[in-house]
Amino acid sequence: MAKTILIINGPNLNLLGEREPEVYGHKTLLDIESECRVITEKYSFKLIAKQSNHEGELIDAIQEARKSAAGIVINPGAYSHTSVALRDAIASVDVPVVEVHISNIHAREEFRHYSFISAVVDGVICGCGTDGYQYAIQRLISLLVH
Amino acid sequence: MAKTILIINGPNLNLLGEREPEVYGHKTLLDIESECRVITEKYSFKLIAKQSNHEGELIDAIQEARKSAAGIVINPGAYSHTSVALRDAIASVDVPVVEVHISNIHAREEFRHYSFISAVVDGVICGCGTDGYQYAIQRLISLLVH
Amino acid sequence: MAKTILIINGPNLNLLGEREPEVYGHKTLLDIESECRVITEKYSFKLIAKQSNHEGELIDAIQEARKSAAGIVINPGAYSHTSVALRDAIASVDVPVVEVHISNIHAREEFRHYSFISAVVDGVICGCGTDGYQYAIQRLISLLVH
Amino acid sequence: MAKTILIINGPNLNLLGEREPEVYGHKTLLDIESECRVITEKYSFKLIAKQSNHEGELIDAIQEARKSAAGIVINPGAYSHTSVALRDAIASVDVPVVEVHISNIHAREEFRHYSFISAVVDGVICGCGTDGYQYAIQRLISLLVH
Amino acid sequence: MAKTILIINGPNLNLLGEREPEVYGHKTLLDIESECRVITEKYSFKLIAKQSNHEGELIDAIQEARKSAAGIVINPGAYSHTSVALRDAIASVDVPVVEVHISNIHAREEFRHYSFISAVVDGVICGCGTDGYQYAIQRLISLLVH
Amino acid sequence: MAKTILIINGPNLNLLGEREPEVYGHKTLLDIESECRVITEKYSFKLIAKQSNHEGELIDAIQEARKSAAGIVINPGAYSHTSVALRDAIASVDVPVVEVHISNIHAREEFRHYSFISAVVDGVICGCGTDGYQYAIQRLISLLVH
Amino acid sequence: MAKTILIINGPNLNLLGEREPEVYGHKTLLDIESECRVITEKYSFKLIAKQSNHEGELIDAIQEARKSAAGIVINPGAYSHTSVALRDAIASVDVPVVEVHISNIHAREEFRHYSFISAVVDGVICGCGTDGYQYAIQRLISLLVH
Amino acid sequence: MAKTILIINGPNLNLLGEREPEVYGHKTLLDIESECRVITEKYSFKLIAKQSNHEGELIDAIQEARKSAAGIVINPGAYSHTSVALRDAIASVDVPVVEVHISNIHAREEFRHYSFISAVVDGVICGCGTDGYQYAIQRLISLLVH
Amino acid sequence: MAKTILIINGPNLNLLGEREPEVYGHKTLLDIESECRVITEKYSFKLIAKQSNHEGELIDAIQEARKSAAGIVINPGAYSHTSVALRDAIASVDVPVVEVHISNIHAREEFRHYSFISAVVDGVICGCGTDGYQYAIQRLISLLVH
Amino acid sequence: MAKTILIINGPNLNLLGEREPEVYGHKTLLDIESECRVITEKYSFKLIAKQSNHEGELIDAIQEARKSAAGIVINPGAYSHTSVALRDAIASVDVPVVEVHISNIHAREEFRHYSFISAVVDGVICGCGTDGYQYAIQRLISLLVH
Amino acid sequence: MAKTILIINGPNLNLLGEREPEVYGHKTLLDIESECRVITEKYSFKLIAKQSNHEGELIDAIQEARKSAAGIVINPGAYSHTSVALRDAIASVDVPVVEVHISNIHAREEFRHYSFISAVVDGVICGCGTDGYQYAIQRLISLLVH
Amino acid sequence: MAKTILIINGPNLNLLGEREPEVYGHKTLLDIESECRVITEKYSFKLIAKQSNHEGELIDAIQEARKSAAGIVINPGAYSHTSVALRDAIASVDVPVVEVHISNIHAREEFRHYSFISAVVDGVICGCGTDGYQYAIQRLISLLVH
Repeated sequence: MAKTILIINGPNLNLLGEREPEVYGHKTLLDIESECRVITEKYSFKLIAKQSNHEGELIDAIQEARKSAAGIVINPGAYSHTSVALRDAIASVDVPVVEVHISNIHAREEFRHYSFISAVVDGVICGCGTDGYQYAIQRLISLLVH
Repeated sequence: MAKTILIINGPNLNLLGEREPEVYGHKTLLDIESECRVITEKYSFKLIAKQSNHEGELIDAIQEARKSAAGIVINPGAYSHTSVALRDAIASVDVPVVEVHISNIHAREEFRHYSFISAVVDGVICGCGTDGYQYAIQRLISLLVH
Repeated sequence: MAKTILIINGPNLNLLGEREPEVYGHKTLLDIESECRVITEKYSFKLIAKQSNHEGELIDAIQEARKSAAGIVINPGAYSHTSVALRDAIASVDVPVVEVHISNIHAREEFRHYSFISAVVDGVICGCGTDGYQYAIQRLISLLVH
Repeated sequence: MAKTILIINGPNLNLLGEREPEVYGHKTLLDIESECRVITEKYSFKLIAKQSNHEGELIDAIQEARKSAAGIVINPGAYSHTSVALRDAIASVDVPVVEVHISNIHAREEFRHYSFISAVVDGVICGCGTDGYQYAIQRLISLLVH
Repeated sequence: MAKTILIINGPNLNLLGEREPEVYGHKTLLDIESECRVITEKYSFKLIAKQSNHEGELIDAIQEARKSAAGIVINPGAYSHTSVALRDAIASVDVPVVEVHISNIHAREEFRHYSFISAVVDGVICGCGTDGYQYAIQRLISLLVH
Repeated sequence: MAKTILIINGPNLNLLGEREPEVYGHKTLLDIESECRVITEKYSFKLIAKQSNHEGELIDAIQEARKSAAGIVINPGAYSHTSVALRDAIASVDVPVVEVHISNIHAREEFRHYSFISAVVDGVICGCGTDGYQYAIQRLISLLVH
Repeated sequence: MAKTILIINGPNLNLLGEREPEVYGHKTLLDIESECRVITEKYSFKLIAKQSNHEGELIDAIQEARKSAAGIVINPGAYSHTSVALRDAIASVDVPVVEVHISNIHAREEFRHYSFISAVVDGVICGCGTDGYQYAIQRLISLLVH
Repeated sequence: MAKTILIINGPNLNLLGEREPEVYGHKTLLDIESECRVITEKYSFKLIAKQSNHEGELIDAIQEARKSAAGIVINPGAYSHTSVALRDAIASVDVPVVEVHISNIHAREEFRHYSFISAVVDGVICGCGTDGYQYAIQRLISLLVH
Repeated sequence: MAKTILIINGPNLNLLGEREPEVYGHKTLLDIESECRVITEKYSFKLIAKQSNHEGELIDAIQEARKSAAGIVINPGAYSHTSVALRDAIASVDVPVVEVHISNIHAREEFRHYSFISAVVDGVICGCGTDGYQYAIQRLISLLVH
Repeated sequence: MAKTILIINGPNLNLLGEREPEVYGHKTLLDIESECRVITEKYSFKLIAKQSNHEGELIDAIQEARKSAAGIVINPGAYSHTSVALRDAIASVDVPVVEVHISNIHAREEFRHYSFISAVVDGVICGCGTDGYQYAIQRLISLLVH
Repeated sequence: MAKTILIINGPNLNLLGEREPEVYGHKTLLDIESECRVITEKYSFKLIAKQSNHEGELIDAIQEARKSAAGIVINPGAYSHTSVALRDAIASVDVPVVEVHISNIHAREEFRHYSFISAVVDGVICGCGTDGYQYAIQRLISLLVH
Repeated sequence: MAKTILIINGPNLNLLGEREPEVYGHKTLLDIESECRVITEKYSFKLIAKQSNHEGELIDAIQEARKSAAGIVINPGAYSHTSVALRDAIASVDVPVVEVHISNIHAREEFRHYSFISAVVDGVICGCGTDGYQYAIQRLISLLVH
């Protein structure tokens, strides 16, 4: 089994730490990555991260992960609500996938309540701030190691 | 600040470990409680658990927690999808609340996709199996301690 | 004819005066009861009050009132929006019933706009604060006495 | 503060007492007005009444009340269900407004269940017959005097 | 019994014969009136006609007809689709009413398919061009005379 | 041009005069036919009538009329609300068609408000009782002769 | 195999025989029980009955039946239309279940047409009056014995 | 009173016993008929059966039953969900009618949940396998004999 | 295996070549049949064709094909959008079925976008003109022969 | 060609500059008119302005403009969302029409997102404050002059 | 006329032959291309193929084809259900376009039933496996050559 | 403050001037840019333009503009109706944004009526042809300069 975990972040998440810090907190994607790496290293997994504003690049990254990764953490951002293509890409992957949303999407506009992605992942964590990424990593490891 | 965390489980969750173990796993509510207590004790929190099939008793328990608890983990079970009264009870509580679903409700029947509760809690964790309770406890402590 | 009027309050209304006083005011259910008693005593009616967070207990109370009460004031709280059982209980009662909501439910979330109860009561008063209970009592007496 | 209360009645309410008396009762608008005046005079308020079948005239009347009235009781009749313009006029007024419906609109055709007006008034009283106007006056005075 | 038949035409119908004659034909309201009068005179009915672009004036006209007319032909024009007030006015009239639309509203935009008026009239004739008015008159006389 | 007018009646209309006469009147299809023939003969048209409870037979009849008839009056009965096939048959006919409903379908159950047929006919007459057939014939002749 | 059959009746069904006898008949729950017992005794089954207005108590009763009963007849009353929790309880039971409604719910208000319960039971009998309980017992025995 | 009971079966039910026997069982329509005849003969009723894949023939059969039958059992098959014409035919019959579905239509595709027929019959039995026909016969006899 | 392929055409398709040739082309059903036979003969299949405007006859034909045909090409015409009975008949057949529409139904009225049939066939070809029948035959042979 | 441009303002817009100036700005309709006149005079057009709270008067004004005006700027206010009659009046006018909304209606309540008027005008400008009127004038002149 | 045919495949179709071969078959895009080339070469057309997971690249490819291609076969994959931009690109092309789906999208999740693309192409072929591409090529050639 | 204004054009707008010139006019994006530059130069703003068919590139461009631009004019083309990601990107920008559509989207297909973008921009201009860009620039300058 591959010993790599992939973290994929979708559109506008590159602005993390900079945009509306009172909502999304002061941590950047790099900070989140570091926090996650503390966990993955404990279990001898390698952590790779990818962010893109392009739906197609996210699909490409997921397709590549089909062979190289043991598990995926994905925050699809706004594409959660509109991308069937991303859903299909995830559904074509055999490894466990956990979806993360930093804010509580159920407490926001109605069009954010539905995620095309949620039905094809193993778990969904939302509204737990950037801590959510760590729980997702824990869950993957729990599924992969135990 | 009160140093107690309350775990509330709704209807049919008393059957955990017994009903459809291939779906919900072999752990009972007591097992879950023990796993959570390992975490809360590390941070000197007391853990109290309540399960009921009665909507009214769940509301009573939440109201009592208004003064005695520092945080709440709730798995409202099927009442997630039908109870405005439970939502109002949770909304009247000032402490942080995290909602947990053992299975991925977004991959099930459509009437399970909407939770009246989600809009008034701080975080939602679903599809992470019984591990979800532990992440919820972690999140509460993260909010309360840090 | 029975000379008793029943006031029924649903879930979370026991917190009145304590929860969000800037919205719901500082009066408790006991205060409201006293204000209503001033009116009922003027017309020689006895006032009985019941509050419960349990849907079943509210139904029990309404069923008991079928023989003992001359009229009912009910604030079904959140059960307004979800309980067909409560509606059926009220529909099975022959005496006049007035529904009260302290806040203006039409200015709140959309799921609060529809009340299963409204179609089977005689009158509906909402958004008049705790004064609404008094108008409801007045209306019952107007129907019963005149 | 102006010491005038305005009662506005919408389309077809001029037929009150004449049309379907078994439903709407035998009282005319003049009768209702007299009953209300008993209350307003006790609190030294002047009562002014306006009825029109014309949406535009009702808007004109509300706009004029912006400076001259301390509170408004409005029965928008059928315009409740169709007039955004009336809603906007009411929303532009700073004084308290109570909406009255003689019959219980929630027990009638579905298109009568929604009122554009309700979300921008302070209180809504329906199904209390012509007594509803008196409760509305009481509520205004309760808000203005106390 | 009053021996008067009232023809009421709603908004924009004053432009008949002038606006889009290829759709609505070259006849004016006056022409239509004359054609109808040929029929009513045969049965000794007087014909009165009223057109207005003002919803309120149409309601006023219908209310006046409550005492003076034996039957009403109404083409509510665009108010068919939006006016509950007009519906209520018609519903308050005891004499027979026939609704006419010159064009076939079911073959036009979807929002023209529903008429609030249709449920409270005796008959509906649409898409028969200006001939429809004559059939409506015939139907009224059929109901009144036979 | 063919000098034949076809009257087509759909399911259950063979019971006319027998079923619920207080609603549908005492006239049978034969009576209606005779009344219509008075008109058609005046204009030297031949009248042919067809009734069937079978959707397919109605379609067959309409297809045959494509060559033999100058105009069609159709009361599609309950097939109005469910038959796209009938609609297509009518749409394939080049001669004028008028749809008739004896009762006012807009004042009945909601599923009767929509007619698949109405959008492809020239005129629609409903709620005028059995007189409606005569107006339909008049309209056809008005279109054909004038 | 357990030789017990459980009959569960939901909210307001305790009023049977007393409330609207012209609709629901003059039989009480005890009468129905006796009629059913005639059948079960013939096949050496024991009959146990439970009625409650409390959703939670109905769920408790179903959970207890998981081990003790060979089959369940349930009339969920108004909870049919609102209770996912009851549905889940029934779905967790392995024995056959038949749902009964005394009146024909499909001929009543639209919100009574959908039953959350129906999709997880074996059979549904409605509108057969109190006889329906007997057919349900027959069906259970047919499934259990044959 | 006529002493005949009619059993009508709609489209594809002629395949019973042959198509998907694991779902619909091994009994044919003839078998079902024989089982029902045992019951009707006990009460001196004659049993007549009719099956057709043609909507029109089903309507014809129901119309003929208006005079000759004392009660009707109907399994409208797929026409349940699409035929207003069948509904109208049934509604025009004065004798009691019970609707039967062999499988539980509420546990199948959503478009099978609604039956146009259900609102105009006396009872509905579904998901009781071919036993359902017998309960329907029993119910008719219960209504006719007692 | 039977070596017969059945082509079924639904309502109004008998008018092919005659009705709106600019839309549907100049070919008749016989022409289409001949073109298809060229293909089937190459693979030693016999071709049988059936057209009817009667839903019931189409069902009868499909049922007969259950034993005699190796594959079915069906253009259900307007019944695509309304017939659950046809769907059930097709679903009961074990051989491959391909649905054909001459015009592109997705570019027409919205009620033509949904086909009850599509979910139970193997393939759907639309908007390819009368060529679509040939592709459907090819597909059947591809499934049957290879 | 007429060299007059008409500016029509609907209900409540007479309060401009007075009502909620922080939202709608401090300019009155007269100020807006003056600003627009600067532009029209440059191109030798005359500017006429009309405001009314009466739907009927707005229709009258538009009808009059059919002959006298070269172009129309209209801010239909709340009638945008409810008036088919106004839409028809505008549709009957041959000159170019531009719709203006001072605030961004797409960022407000959902019932303000749809404008019956927009589909029949040439352009729509919203959320540009009172500047929007000037752009509308510019657009008309661009269409009329160039 | 250009003698080139373009085959465009959307997201995740590059996995063809590798992902779920039991559903999508063992053929790769290259295999499909070869099969199609056999046909195009027979008619002296050149075949060019393009696959991308990026919506923008698909649009770019279609735009380029506006001048260089005589016809387009497109399998838009998941973008079928979400991309108005792709629809607009296709609509801007003057040459014939045929849409292909390998699986039968009408037998899958409801959100896959609607394709934004279908309304602007000439033909749609789905559920015919990879053979569908060949039929699409045949159709293009049929349109271009004959 | 940055003195740069960014014009962003979405998918298929690179075809401007070439595709359907009778609808979109003969001007190219370069022409539009030149016309806008005349205005920006008058106020000493620099104009930068970006067009892409790729959703991701549009998001990238907006993100870059967060620091470098004083205002944005965006015509999101078809992404208006489907892109939540674009909406989020715009919402993360602090400078004023005006949305432009060349054609009147409210007069086109229904799926074009809703724009995800409109709720988060300052103004929306549509149906004013390519002039709309100039009004948008004027509005930005009006907001930035005055």
